[in-house]
Amino acid sequence: MPLTPEQEAEIAEARLHPRPTLRAVAEGMERHLYLAHPVLDHGFVRVIDYMGDDAAITQAARVSYGRGTKAVSNDEGLIRYLMRHWHSTPFEMCEVKFHVKLPVFVARQWIRHRTANVNEYSARYSILDREFYIPAPEHLAAQSTVNNQGRGEPLQGEEAQRVLDWLREDAARAYDHYEAMLSREGQQGLARELARMNLPANIYTQWYWKIDLHNLFHFLRLRADAHAQYEIRAYAEAMCGIVRDWVPLAWAAFEDYRLGGVTLSAKAVEVVKRRLAGEAVTQETSGMSKGEWREFEGVWG
Amino acid sequence: MPLTPEQEAEIAEARLHPRPTLRAVAEGMERHLYLAHPVLDHGFVRVIDYMGDDAAITQAARVSYGRGTKAVSNDEGLIRYLMRHWHSTPFEMCEVKFHVKLPVFVARQWIRHRTANVNEYSARYSILDREFYIPAPEHLAAQSTVNNQGRGEPLQGEEAQRVLDWLREDAARAYDHYEAMLSREGQQGLARELARMNLPANIYTQWYWKIDLHNLFHFLRLRADAHAQYEIRAYAEAMCGIVRDWVPLAWAAFEDYRLGGVTLSAKAVEVVKRRLAGEAVTQETSGMSKGEWREFEGVWG
Amino acid sequence: MPLTPEQEAEIAEARLHPRPTLRAVAEGMERHLYLAHPVLDHGFVRVIDYMGDDAAITQAARVSYGRGTKAVSNDEGLIRYLMRHWHSTPFEMCEVKFHVKLPVFVARQWIRHRTANVNEYSARYSILDREFYIPAPEHLAAQSTVNNQGRGEPLQGEEAQRVLDWLREDAARAYDHYEAMLSREGQQGLARELARMNLPANIYTQWYWKIDLHNLFHFLRLRADAHAQYEIRAYAEAMCGIVRDWVPLAWAAFEDYRLGGVTLSAKAVEVVKRRLAGEAVTQETSGMSKGEWREFEGVWG
Amino acid sequence: MPLTPEQEAEIAEARLHPRPTLRAVAEGMERHLYLAHPVLDHGFVRVIDYMGDDAAITQAARVSYGRGTKAVSNDEGLIRYLMRHWHSTPFEMCEVKFHVKLPVFVARQWIRHRTANVNEYSARYSILDREFYIPAPEHLAAQSTVNNQGRGEPLQGEEAQRVLDWLREDAARAYDHYEAMLSREGQQGLARELARMNLPANIYTQWYWKIDLHNLFHFLRLRADAHAQYEIRAYAEAMCGIVRDWVPLAWAAFEDYRLGGVTLSAKAVEVVKRRLAGEAVTQETSGMSKGEWREFEGVWG
Repeated sequence: MPLTPEQEAEIAEARLHPRPTLRAVAEGMERHLYLAHPVLDHGFVRVIDYMGDDAAITQAARVSYGRGTKAVSNDEGLIRYLMRHWHSTPFEMCEVKFHVKLPVFVARQWIRHRTANVNEYSARYSILDREFYIPAPEHLAAQSTVNNQGRGEPLQGEEAQRVLDWLREDAARAYDHYEAMLSREGQQGLARELARMNLPANIYTQWYWKIDLHNLFHFLRLRADAHAQYEIRAYAEAMCGIVRDWVPLAWAAFEDYRLGGVTLSAKAVEVVKRRLAGEAVTQETSGMSKGEWREFEGVWG
Repeated sequence: MPLTPEQEAEIAEARLHPRPTLRAVAEGMERHLYLAHPVLDHGFVRVIDYMGDDAAITQAARVSYGRGTKAVSNDEGLIRYLMRHWHSTPFEMCEVKFHVKLPVFVARQWIRHRTANVNEYSARYSILDREFYIPAPEHLAAQSTVNNQGRGEPLQGEEAQRVLDWLREDAARAYDHYEAMLSREGQQGLARELARMNLPANIYTQWYWKIDLHNLFHFLRLRADAHAQYEIRAYAEAMCGIVRDWVPLAWAAFEDYRLGGVTLSAKAVEVVKRRLAGEAVTQETSGMSKGEWREFEGVWG
Repeated sequence: MPLTPEQEAEIAEARLHPRPTLRAVAEGMERHLYLAHPVLDHGFVRVIDYMGDDAAITQAARVSYGRGTKAVSNDEGLIRYLMRHWHSTPFEMCEVKFHVKLPVFVARQWIRHRTANVNEYSARYSILDREFYIPAPEHLAAQSTVNNQGRGEPLQGEEAQRVLDWLREDAARAYDHYEAMLSREGQQGLARELARMNLPANIYTQWYWKIDLHNLFHFLRLRADAHAQYEIRAYAEAMCGIVRDWVPLAWAAFEDYRLGGVTLSAKAVEVVKRRLAGEAVTQETSGMSKGEWREFEGVWG
Repeated sequence: MPLTPEQEAEIAEARLHPRPTLRAVAEGMERHLYLAHPVLDHGFVRVIDYMGDDAAITQAARVSYGRGTKAVSNDEGLIRYLMRHWHSTPFEMCEVKFHVKLPVFVARQWIRHRTANVNEYSARYSILDREFYIPAPEHLAAQSTVNNQGRGEPLQGEEAQRVLDWLREDAARAYDHYEAMLSREGQQGLARELARMNLPANIYTQWYWKIDLHNLFHFLRLRADAHAQYEIRAYAEAMCGIVRDWVPLAWAAFEDYRLGGVTLSAKAVEVVKRRLAGEAVTQETSGMSKGEWREFEGVWG
């Protein structure tokens, strides 16, 4: 259970009292506010605040394009047009703030996205809780044999058991020593900023993370992708569900043009055109490397 | 009058119907929503949307510092502490979106602040309105004789009149030709993206501008400063009034530590200490250049 | 002629004396250093400094991927792999600084790219030169009749002449008044920060503009595109030639995957697959809007 | 020893062959190029590349301020003027790229500075080395009793020994299991992206880190400060020595105005003025909180 009873009570309290506002309100997002979506074994994502909705995107676009945009008769068409033509600034007009609880190794991947605002729990200042990510059996995957950066099938039998035991025991012992280094009867106590370095990367941390919709889409395109590490993808997928309810029109355009979209190189365009003209193109006659050809065939057969 | 009757009606309509939300609501900001604050002769600033309030700042800080922050008993003390120690990320948790109408030469200064989101009216796509900034007599200032980058007293008499006439006539003629180049019976019409280049820098443009509170404070510190050009300062001051109502505690801390604050160099600290010890320090014995000494005396006499 | 004889002499002088360095040196870029590439009637682009070369990109990638990257046997293959898979950070390891002289209306488009460092000539501090962009006859284009944001054929005959006369006369008069407002015998002189507002958007300004290669590629993809306004495209194309000589492998990958690449939506992928399977798909049966279909046919026929 | 003999040989080789360049060359920086400055027990900082020197800063400023800057007769005075008046863009014209080897818990603090380019060694792709930070006895500090976020005296005797033993043993065991989970005869081998999560935060990682001089100064001001955690300060101090040799004039201005500078709130300015006028001000009559007064007395006695 990722939340304490106190936190559950706080969330219930926060959802009790709607207040009047003159701002844009996204009904689909109000339903998510404050509620924790569980992710992994102890993590969660929850929305703390948001600004804007689908209409805020088109409103900003209409400031830019003035009278001209009236030609596009509706919001859906305009949003699809903006997404198709890589107009990023109207999507930047929506903003969202998440509270996320996540393992440190996931946080380290996540933070590579620099265009967001972050307040992370400080282990220099405070003491971390005893919570560690231990993969479920079906996610305890072997190293991929074809991809340096990927996973194969789940480990089985004795090997799986041994790995789980090590992960649990090492985490428990590291935390025991962390606590004992911090304070014990009759000792000075190691500085928190030093003691934390004994903790493994599967310990949970948490942060507030605030980002605009354009940059969030960029994050989701990379992290909800099948090539992303499962553990961060689990967070990205929870956020996809939230964004779908928040800005349904922008989400649909994103799904069509980005998540489901395919980018072809100039060479690949030529090969598809030759195929459309009836030619049987092989890797050898394609001008592509083997790696490119494998990826090309992954889409086009 | 910066707004058309249609715009006035739209604003009145937008303010008619509050809706319930579970988000943080800043009462002081709700009073400003959508309303245009007039700036210069045809410009305005108005709030289109906002996220967060004073409590959102301390809430984010408490995520970072965990139990530790409970030592600071109240929001005001914590916000002052954060501002004093240059903790910027909690202030990034608030966001605001403005609609601004402003002369192009002001927009060119403004846009140098890169950490904001912008949707500007496109003169490539649409036709600009016939509106130009003409300074009021008291702001038609002479070049400063001591500062390359400053103003002296207002121009007087015939010179003032001649300048105003030129500004008005050149703007009117440029706009007449702009219109005539775009369309006239029996002609093809110059592309809008080219015709706009005939327009002077005092023509008005408009944009949506969205920024977080930390970066907004940085903008206001530079642009509400006495050394900023009057025309951009007029906008910054209108925004100061809005921010004061939005996040009164953060504003008070900003006023004390930034707007009213003074930064001393290591050399200047030494001079103040010598003075406190009773020594009469002069420029010659201060180790400062003449320029630095003049600025030092401007604060300390 | 965009440069004064003094500037020409300074450039020649700067190119006279090579000095030894232990840094990476890109021979192709050394040939461009300081030299002005003329753009439009009075503008230019010139390289002032650069950091890194093709090898700097793969070197950074090899830090990231460690021993694993040895599988990719050569720099070219690795650079193509990085570009194909949207790995942006290795390309951020190269940096370039340009000196650009450009009309103000071009500068206003350009500055929308925020991830760069800029030092622009200050018309608040200094006096602008009397130089204005006047389009060559073949670029004095009519408004497109199908695209709000595009150009048609060049204006002809009397209309072309009238437009050119207005552009020239209005610029000349505006500048005469600018000068006269600034200083004239027996007058105070208007502040420079105010006088500049009488100047039209085709006056030339200049700046230093520094950017990393990843963000430069993003700029070039948008601004060297056929839909970009001709005047900014002229600068982008001059820069493309420079980048090609600087990092030839990265350039070739960029040309194949980005400039010549095509992005297909999920819907478009389906249509291409149906066509490959022999089906004759029309707009009606494609699931695309008319606008999308027109763009789709523009690529695929 | 932070470097392997192979790395030492590579560095020696890279320093053997200077090549001619027309770019600005900073002699002080050439002496540092590629050389590793040891930091902590296994870490280092080394310069991989740089762009610009002191003259590049003033050159950019002179583009901005045009003829006006000739009034400032020399580079030193101009650089001090720019630093004093918070002109950041000229300092952004210099760029530097470091290769840093550092413990993960230091990397996590460091990465909070978002305005830099980073390529970090990927533990998803490659296998980390068996290297852990173990504090020297004089840095094995107790938790501060007055500051939640600070250190007291070094631990002594048995407690010190026990902590060191735990740190060493837990790291060794975690790494043994990391290796055993990755591969062992007759097993599938856990995915690298999962196995890494067993490793503690004192394991070393490495990255390329590229940043402009303005943002580097900001980083150094915060991280070379006495309140920064010792371990990151050790890196910041090594970099201070490098920057001093690279841009000596900018460094001197930074030292005077930032590192040695003091910022006073409006209230603090009033108190100093009252003291200068002979008044004996106490906390009670100062209008400051106890915390502020303590900090104020820390500077002014």
